[in-house]
Amino acid sequence: MTDLNFSKASRTIKAFGTYAADKQLEQLTINRRTTEPHDVEIEILYCGICHSDLHAIRNEWGGTTYPIVPGHEIVGKVTRVGGRVTKFKVGDLVGVGCIVDSCRHCDACAGGEEQFCEQGWTVVFNYPDKISGGMTYGGFSETIVVDEHYVLHVPEKLDLPSAAPILCAGITVYSPLKHWQAGAGKRVGIIGLGGLGHMAVKIAKAMGATVVVFSTSAGKAEDAKRLGADEVVISKDAAQMRKTPKLDMILDTVSGKHDVNQYLNLLKTDGSLVLVGLPVEPLPVGAFSLVNGRRSFSGSNIGGILETQEVLDFCAKHNITAEIELINIRDVNTAFERMGKGDVHYRFVIDMKSL
Amino acid sequence: MTDLNFSKASRTIKAFGTYAADKQLEQLTINRRTTEPHDVEIEILYCGICHSDLHAIRNEWGGTTYPIVPGHEIVGKVTRVGGRVTKFKVGDLVGVGCIVDSCRHCDACAGGEEQFCEQGWTVVFNYPDKISGGMTYGGFSETIVVDEHYVLHVPEKLDLPSAAPILCAGITVYSPLKHWQAGAGKRVGIIGLGGLGHMAVKIAKAMGATVVVFSTSAGKAEDAKRLGADEVVISKDAAQMRKTPKLDMILDTVSGKHDVNQYLNLLKTDGSLVLVGLPVEPLPVGAFSLVNGRRSFSGSNIGGILETQEVLDFCAKHNITAEIELINIRDVNTAFERMGKGDVHYRFVIDMKSL
Repeated sequence: MTDLNFSKASRTIKAFGTYAADKQLEQLTINRRTTEPHDVEIEILYCGICHSDLHAIRNEWGGTTYPIVPGHEIVGKVTRVGGRVTKFKVGDLVGVGCIVDSCRHCDACAGGEEQFCEQGWTVVFNYPDKISGGMTYGGFSETIVVDEHYVLHVPEKLDLPSAAPILCAGITVYSPLKHWQAGAGKRVGIIGLGGLGHMAVKIAKAMGATVVVFSTSAGKAEDAKRLGADEVVISKDAAQMRKTPKLDMILDTVSGKHDVNQYLNLLKTDGSLVLVGLPVEPLPVGAFSLVNGRRSFSGSNIGGILETQEVLDFCAKHNITAEIELINIRDVNTAFERMGKGDVHYRFVIDMKSL
Repeated sequence: MTDLNFSKASRTIKAFGTYAADKQLEQLTINRRTTEPHDVEIEILYCGICHSDLHAIRNEWGGTTYPIVPGHEIVGKVTRVGGRVTKFKVGDLVGVGCIVDSCRHCDACAGGEEQFCEQGWTVVFNYPDKISGGMTYGGFSETIVVDEHYVLHVPEKLDLPSAAPILCAGITVYSPLKHWQAGAGKRVGIIGLGGLGHMAVKIAKAMGATVVVFSTSAGKAEDAKRLGADEVVISKDAAQMRKTPKLDMILDTVSGKHDVNQYLNLLKTDGSLVLVGLPVEPLPVGAFSLVNGRRSFSGSNIGGILETQEVLDFCAKHNITAEIELINIRDVNTAFERMGKGDVHYRFVIDMKSL
């Protein structure tokens, strides 16, 4: 595969992706631009698999351009730096998440919240690349070239494969937990104990909150406690739900269809239910679920570059990484199938040596 | 009609209400308790008609007990006071809104936010009355007896019939506009130009905000400007919607079915769409409408007693009252029919002399 839209000098590398929504992922080749003055070239060592990768390869949100190479929880080692790079040198351990470019001058970018860039930010895969002229390709590949502003330092202390999910799952839960002030004296709920949910339990606990896990599956109770949950509520059990003392904030990590009203009704006055999962179908919200108690149904989307560095450092300080299954890239189609059924404990990470 | 559940001495008075969801309102008699030591007896002079009255008499939210006497935008004159009343004397102009009792000791009550009373507050009609033992009956009646804590002073300066809607429509929009900090430098949207919406335009304007009215009806544009709107956007016009500069907050006063996503997408980062209408059916919310821009879909329900006094005083200071059609109580069924079709400019108020 050769991308004719490339306007920059480029190199051909190996990657793993798919040519259609109903096709399996397979090995293919893509172009990467060579390093521009501000660019860092990274040899990808590990790449996490997120539910968003699944939504995207299957075109469940619409707008997917094929071929697509997913992957946005990238850790690796710097192999080359452009002439004007100041933050990184060859050999550094680094990470790349969802954001690889943005306008850099709007209020959001100036304030370090590139995820709200008024011009729209460049997603690490399946997005028009302003720099190369082609489309972006994600982390299921040998190498990636990214402007240094969007590259993160991965603390040496972190176990590299299990640190990869911090780049999306970690920042996606850290940012709202911080924004809505999870911490000592707060009762914080986490709905869903998957890739995002299990990181949220660890991070909210490290922030000092009382952590209540809501799960449809009684089988996850013990694991939730092991991960740090103070309480576990089986959401299908109406009596348990009714008895649960009210919460200040609930983080909703579910990416499928679910009833949010039962959780809104568990919030204290001025409490917020914060969605970080991205269900395809709209979620019906009853008026009384909001007006009673002046409650909010809110959303949060990853986090900015500064905050992504912050969560990496926070995780290093508190010895937090994801619980992962390290897989060979030849098993990635099976991994997506299992993910679709919710059968992950709690994040797949690809050992990129297997490419 | 005699209420056998009454545990207090009572008097029989004339009222207007209905015995079933599918019956017209008609004249009937109800019991009112005689004044207890902390009670104020009020001769009702005017009573506004709110969409909630319509929902309740037709049992659209469920839970209505018949016979029901609606009415919760009450202004009148004090005719009697209990021995321990300190805030009112015979002859005072007073108002009563939705709340006539609450637990008085929970955090919410202690903080002057009785609308969030942890025990549940007593609604002025169709709610078990802890004091009398019967059900509460609303303002479509000759007199009402209310504990002085829940009675408001109506400033003499206000025109009495057009001040009545401040007791519900006014406080319902004032409270969220204040809570979400509508004011100078803020772009505030108001969806719907009905009873609540037209008060919201006047109040948000008096708070100093730039006011943008969203209406399905082009015919209301001129009126919206007359009421104080800086901009009017016809929500059915996709091009107009697209061109509208983003807003800090949007107050949603619509009580029927409508698409909230088109408004969520008009909010700035961290903006809130605040629902004060009470649609019967749940409103579908798309995940991206919330996560893009960390937006919130929130709700607000009337306001506490202190804040209701505050909005009455605010309206007196800024010369704000509702635009009303003053009607005879014999025309109340026609008024409800017209309200169901949205044909009100902008609030019906009953001249209670006609009872």
